[in-house]
Amino acid sequence: MRIDIISCVPKLLDSPFSHSILQRANDKALSEVHVHDLREYKVNKHGHIDDYAYGHGAGMVLMADPIFNCIEDLKKERDYQEVIYMTPDGEVFDQQIANHLSISCENIIILCGHYKGIDQRVRDEVITREISIGDFVLSGGELAAAVVADAIIRLIPGVLGDETSALTDSFQDGLLAPPVYTRPREWKGQEVPDILLSGHESKIDEWRLEQSMERTKERRPDLWEKYLDAHPEVKTKPKKKKK
Amino acid sequence: MRIDIISCVPKLLDSPFSHSILQRANDKALSEVHVHDLREYKVNKHGHIDDYAYGHGAGMVLMADPIFNCIEDLKKERDYQEVIYMTPDGEVFDQQIANHLSISCENIIILCGHYKGIDQRVRDEVITREISIGDFVLSGGELAAAVVADAIIRLIPGVLGDETSALTDSFQDGLLAPPVYTRPREWKGQEVPDILLSGHESKIDEWRLEQSMERTKERRPDLWEKYLDAHPEVKTKPKKKKK
Repeated sequence: MRIDIISCVPKLLDSPFSHSILQRANDKALSEVHVHDLREYKVNKHGHIDDYAYGHGAGMVLMADPIFNCIEDLKKERDYQEVIYMTPDGEVFDQQIANHLSISCENIIILCGHYKGIDQRVRDEVITREISIGDFVLSGGELAAAVVADAIIRLIPGVLGDETSALTDSFQDGLLAPPVYTRPREWKGQEVPDILLSGHESKIDEWRLEQSMERTKERRPDLWEKYLDAHPEVKTKPKKKKK
Repeated sequence: MRIDIISCVPKLLDSPFSHSILQRANDKALSEVHVHDLREYKVNKHGHIDDYAYGHGAGMVLMADPIFNCIEDLKKERDYQEVIYMTPDGEVFDQQIANHLSISCENIIILCGHYKGIDQRVRDEVITREISIGDFVLSGGELAAAVVADAIIRLIPGVLGDETSALTDSFQDGLLAPPVYTRPREWKGQEVPDILLSGHESKIDEWRLEQSMERTKERRPDLWEKYLDAHPEVKTKPKKKKK
């Protein structure tokens, strides 16, 4: 998979893609991320890429032409399945969208907004999908783009060390993940739950599912309701956590 | 405001805090972000900070002691109002939480998870707040921590160039932001809406509110319902967008 990120602060993204799992995915040739500087496409006589918003009020807006021209240049090189604009008023990103993009896309462009956003006309003209990572505002779309790229790339087969690891993450089955424990067995007077030391794989699985269900019900009633709708066989309440 | 981020991949966060608005906030001494390497607190005989999860199945878990010791060291230096753990099963981050943390906290610790997470016992012991940036899984908590830091820091008075700018963002009034336009007035045959060129500030404000309401209603019925609950005076449907 190839992801082309367009930004007016490209250096902000220097380090996230050169460490940890994203670096490993790149080293294994499973993904490549390229960050493009929108300022190379400056067009007006002052060499700017932004200008004042029409109408009174504060804030600068990224102009249509630099964005349009940058995307056109990329499209000359290859086909893109999606041209995504990161914006707080986009569709709210979730694991289903991450799964979908990871499976169905070979090449993606992600455009980062900045200031008050981009000219509405270029949104209408070239953007195929608008994504928000949540109901909050960032100083630019760069971190949001990095979040989306990370969530997608880690799902590519071969990227994570252990193939089964992503399957037990929160959200993959519609539930939050259960609690986890590691050595030492006793820490500040608190023991690891006995069941995890029992070696009974099926009982451990059952305990983890109960814990996941209970945690989801307590912390995220919205997800719990969706889970119940999708799993009509779950009629009983999850059992109380054993202390 | 001071934010201390604890990570086992600290270099991943080198660039996000040294550019753009976060750099400016640091230069103006309005905020400081310090990233700490959890590996400096490795404790077991192999010099690791993680170990296998108890019970069968894939994935490594960050051990309790390195986390506990790192946080204790920081707490010796100053008081922290919150010790936040970034985790997909935490409270879902939004603009209200960003506003609250920005106003009420002088010092914050943000702990980044990695692998399958951290030992549940240290969560129970030292974490004051668990935050998720959304219903998706990342390869680590680093980008999520950067997102939270960005959202908080940009709200500190003096950080944004224009003080009024953050007030017109999406979510600050419970609505998505209206479309924005900048020069040129005509682009690929599409004109900027006449109203924005009219100079009638109150009519422009009215148009922007209508656009915000319509966009929120179309794209985020969940937010629209909350808005209606909070604004019982809004009884009529927003008018149709004038083409």
